[in-house]
Amino acid sequence: MSGDAAEIKRLRRRIDDVTLSMVRLLGERVEISTRIGNAKQHDRLPVVDESRESDLRERVLREAASVGLSKDIAARFLSHLINESVVVESDGGSAHLAVFGRAKAMEAEGRDIIHMEVGEPDFDPPAYAGSGLLEGFRAGLTRYGLPAGDPRLRGALAEDVNGRYRAGMGVDNILVTPGARFAVFAAITTLLEPGDEIVIVEPAWPAYREAALYRDAKPHIVRTTLEDGWEPSLDEMENAITSQTRMVVLSYPSNPTGKILPRRVLDGVMEMAARHDLYVLSDEIYRDYAARGAHRSVLEYSYPRGIVTQSFSKSHAMMGFRIGYAAAPADIIKKMTSASALCLTGVAGVIQHAALRAMKHDVSANVREIRRRLDVISDMARKTGLEFVEPDGAMYVFARVPGADGMQVVEECLKRGLALAPGSGFGHYPEFIRISAGTSRVKSGMNILHDVVGGSRWKR
Amino acid sequence: MSGDAAEIKRLRRRIDDVTLSMVRLLGERVEISTRIGNAKQHDRLPVVDESRESDLRERVLREAASVGLSKDIAARFLSHLINESVVVESDGGSAHLAVFGRAKAMEAEGRDIIHMEVGEPDFDPPAYAGSGLLEGFRAGLTRYGLPAGDPRLRGALAEDVNGRYRAGMGVDNILVTPGARFAVFAAITTLLEPGDEIVIVEPAWPAYREAALYRDAKPHIVRTTLEDGWEPSLDEMENAITSQTRMVVLSYPSNPTGKILPRRVLDGVMEMAARHDLYVLSDEIYRDYAARGAHRSVLEYSYPRGIVTQSFSKSHAMMGFRIGYAAAPADIIKKMTSASALCLTGVAGVIQHAALRAMKHDVSANVREIRRRLDVISDMARKTGLEFVEPDGAMYVFARVPGADGMQVVEECLKRGLALAPGSGFGHYPEFIRISAGTSRVKSGMNILHDVVGGSRWKR
Repeated sequence: MSGDAAEIKRLRRRIDDVTLSMVRLLGERVEISTRIGNAKQHDRLPVVDESRESDLRERVLREAASVGLSKDIAARFLSHLINESVVVESDGGSAHLAVFGRAKAMEAEGRDIIHMEVGEPDFDPPAYAGSGLLEGFRAGLTRYGLPAGDPRLRGALAEDVNGRYRAGMGVDNILVTPGARFAVFAAITTLLEPGDEIVIVEPAWPAYREAALYRDAKPHIVRTTLEDGWEPSLDEMENAITSQTRMVVLSYPSNPTGKILPRRVLDGVMEMAARHDLYVLSDEIYRDYAARGAHRSVLEYSYPRGIVTQSFSKSHAMMGFRIGYAAAPADIIKKMTSASALCLTGVAGVIQHAALRAMKHDVSANVREIRRRLDVISDMARKTGLEFVEPDGAMYVFARVPGADGMQVVEECLKRGLALAPGSGFGHYPEFIRISAGTSRVKSGMNILHDVVGGSRWKR
Repeated sequence: MSGDAAEIKRLRRRIDDVTLSMVRLLGERVEISTRIGNAKQHDRLPVVDESRESDLRERVLREAASVGLSKDIAARFLSHLINESVVVESDGGSAHLAVFGRAKAMEAEGRDIIHMEVGEPDFDPPAYAGSGLLEGFRAGLTRYGLPAGDPRLRGALAEDVNGRYRAGMGVDNILVTPGARFAVFAAITTLLEPGDEIVIVEPAWPAYREAALYRDAKPHIVRTTLEDGWEPSLDEMENAITSQTRMVVLSYPSNPTGKILPRRVLDGVMEMAARHDLYVLSDEIYRDYAARGAHRSVLEYSYPRGIVTQSFSKSHAMMGFRIGYAAAPADIIKKMTSASALCLTGVAGVIQHAALRAMKHDVSANVREIRRRLDVISDMARKTGLEFVEPDGAMYVFARVPGADGMQVVEECLKRGLALAPGSGFGHYPEFIRISAGTSRVKSGMNILHDVVGGSRWKR
C-alpha cells in the first residue's frame, strides 16, 4: 500500500466517525423538532417562523466562517435541515384550476356556465396562426429543431423587443418555450440552486412559488394589500432579502390585481436588485393589456440579470398553441436552454411557424374589448359594494366581498352558473375573488354575483 | 408567556446548539474530504467509490436505527453530504447533439453532409398529421386544455395499447406529453426524491441519467458489453440495488445497440423489481422498429409500478411535432401530470389532434425501409471490419472500430462529409460509434466510413 493509500484510509476512517456523530446529532435535532411541533400545535402557532429562521441562518454562517467552512455549503446544509423539519404548507395552489375543472364537469352535465374564473380570452386566434400551421407543415418543419427555438422566430422576436424598448437584442437573447409557464419554470430551476431564496410579491400567479418549491428553493413572500393600492413596499422587499436570495419575481400588469408598478417603484426594485446582485424575473404576459405607455418593461433597464417572460396566449388568444418566450442576456438564455434540451428537445416546428406568422396580427381590437369589459366589471362591482382597486391593465378585477369568505362566494356563484377564482389561489387572500374579463358575458356574470352578494347575509 | 411558549423557547435554544455543533462537524468533514480529494488526485484514483459509499450508508442507517431516527431522513441526509463532497463527473452527455450542431453548421457553409448521427428518420410525416393540424384549428382546439391531455387522444391511445397488449387501460392511464423526453422527465422527477437511487442499463440515451441528476437522484449504472451481446446481467442489476433504489430504467429495442431483451431476462428484471418494490420505467419508442413479435412491452406484465413511454417521433416521423405519451397505472399518471401542470399547462391542442389523426397511418413501409437500411449498414460494417451485434430492432448499429477511438473516427468522417455519433454519448463507450439508419444515403455514408477506417492506421 502506497503512503497516499494509507493516508486515504486513515482520512476515510475519520470522515466516517464525523459522519456518524452528525447522524446522532440529526437524531437529536429531529426529536426536538417533533416536540416543538407538538407544542406549537397545542398553542395553534404557525409551522414556519421566518424571523427565527433568519436568526439561525446568521448564526450558522458566523459559525461556518469561524471554522473555515464555505458560506454556500453551510447555507445549503441548513436549508436541508430546515426542509426536513418543516412540512411545506399547502397553499391552495391552483384553486382556480380546480374551479375550472368543476365548472367544466357541470357543463358536461348540460349546465350553462359563465366562465369568469380563467385567464382565457374568448377571442378567436389570428387567422395567420391557422395558415401558419399548414404553411409550416408543407415547408417540412417536422424534423428535430434546436432547443432554443427556430432562429427565424427568435430573430423576429428579438426585433420586436428592440422596436418596443431599444433593448439591443439578437437571436441569442431569445428562448422559445411552450408558453410563458415553461419560461418561468426554466428560469427558476436553472438559475437557482436548492436552498437559494427567491422573493415573490403576492398576490401572484402560483406558478412562481410552485417552480421555486420544485427546485427546493425557498420563497420569501412580500405581501401587498388593497389598502396600499397593491404597491409593494421597497423596505419590506429589502427586509426579505438575505445572503441566500438570488432572484426577485415581478409580474406587472399583475395577475390578479391589474396593478402596474409606477416608474419610481420599479426603479427602486431594479436598484435594489443590482445592489444585491439578484436576478429579476419579470413576467410581462399582460403587456399588451395596458393603457398605452403605462406598461414598463424590465427590458428597458438593460439589466444584466433581467429575464422577461412573454406569451402569445393572452394577447393573441393562442392559449392552446402553448407558445411563449423568454428575453434575457445571452448567458442566461444559454442556461435556460438546458431545461428545454432536457425536458422538451424544443418546441414543435409548425407551432413556432404559426407564432411567427401571428406576429403580423394587430391585437388592438382585443385590447380595446378587454378594457371595455373591465370597465363593465368595475362599474357593476362598485354597485354591488365590492372593494377593489380599478385595474391599470391585465384582464381581471381582484375584489374583496366585505365580510365574506371568497371561497364561499365562489361556491354560491358556481351553483348559480358563474365560475370565479377564489383569492386563496394567489396567496393568503381568503377574503378575495378574482373576476376575469375573458368572457363576453360579463354583464350576466356580474348580475349573478350581485344577486349572490346582495341577497345574502354578507350584505352590509 | 404561557408554559408552552416557555417550553418552545427552551427547545429552540437546544435545536440551535445542536445545529451549530453539526455545522462544526460539517466544517471538519469538508476539510477531510478536500484532503482525500488531493490524495486521490495524486494517485489518479476515481472521485467516486461506490462500494465505500454503500458501506458508509449501511453504517449510517444502523446508527440512525440505534438513535431512533427515521431511515429515510438519515439516507437523505447522507446523500446531501455525499453530493456536497463529490463534483459530478462530466459524462460527455449529448455528444451526438454536438456533432449534429457542427454538421448543421458545415451544411450552412454549403458542405454536403450525410446525417448518420441523429435518430431522425428522413420519411415524411403522415398526410393525416397535416390535415389534422388544420382540422384541429378549425374545430377551435386553441383554448387551454387539460394537463394530462385531450381525453379523446388519451382514450384512443389507451385503446391502441389494449389492442396490442390486453393491458386493460383507460383514459386515466395515459399522459400526453411533448415527446417521450418529457414523459421520461416527468416520471423520473415526480416519482423520485433527491437522494433516491435509480438503476440505468448502459449504453443508453443520456436523458435518463440527465433527468436523474436534475432531480439530485443517484444513477447506478449497469454496464452491458458487446461481448455479452448487450444483455444485462441480472446479478449485476441485483447488486446495484440498495435500500435507496426506487427505479430501474429499461429501453428496448435499445438506442444505441438495437438489442431486444429475451423474454427470460425481462421476466427476471420484472421479478427483481417486484421483489424490491421498484418502479420500472420502460422507454419503448422503437417498439415498431422490431421484427414482428420480437418486442416485449413492460405493459404485458400489468406491473403496478410500470411506466412505458412512447412517441410519434420515430414510428411516424413526427419528430418536430413533439408528441409522445406515457402509459401507466392511474396513480402514477396522476403524479406525472403534476409535472405537465407545472411546466407546460398541457400539450398544444392542434398537435394532439394531429396525433389522433396520424394514428390511422400505416407505419409498416417505414419499418421495412429502416430494416433494409440496417441490413445494408450491417453488411458494409462487416466488410469494413467493425465489431458489432446485428441489431434486433431500433434504427442503429452500435459498432467498435478495432483499435480506434470513436471520437477520432467521428472527427475524421465529419471532415469527409459523414456525421456519426460517438459512443461516449451513451455511457463509457469511447471505442464505439453509433451509425443511424435515418438517412436513405446509407451506402454513400458507409463508403466514407470504410475509406476512413480502411485507409488509416486503424486497419488491422
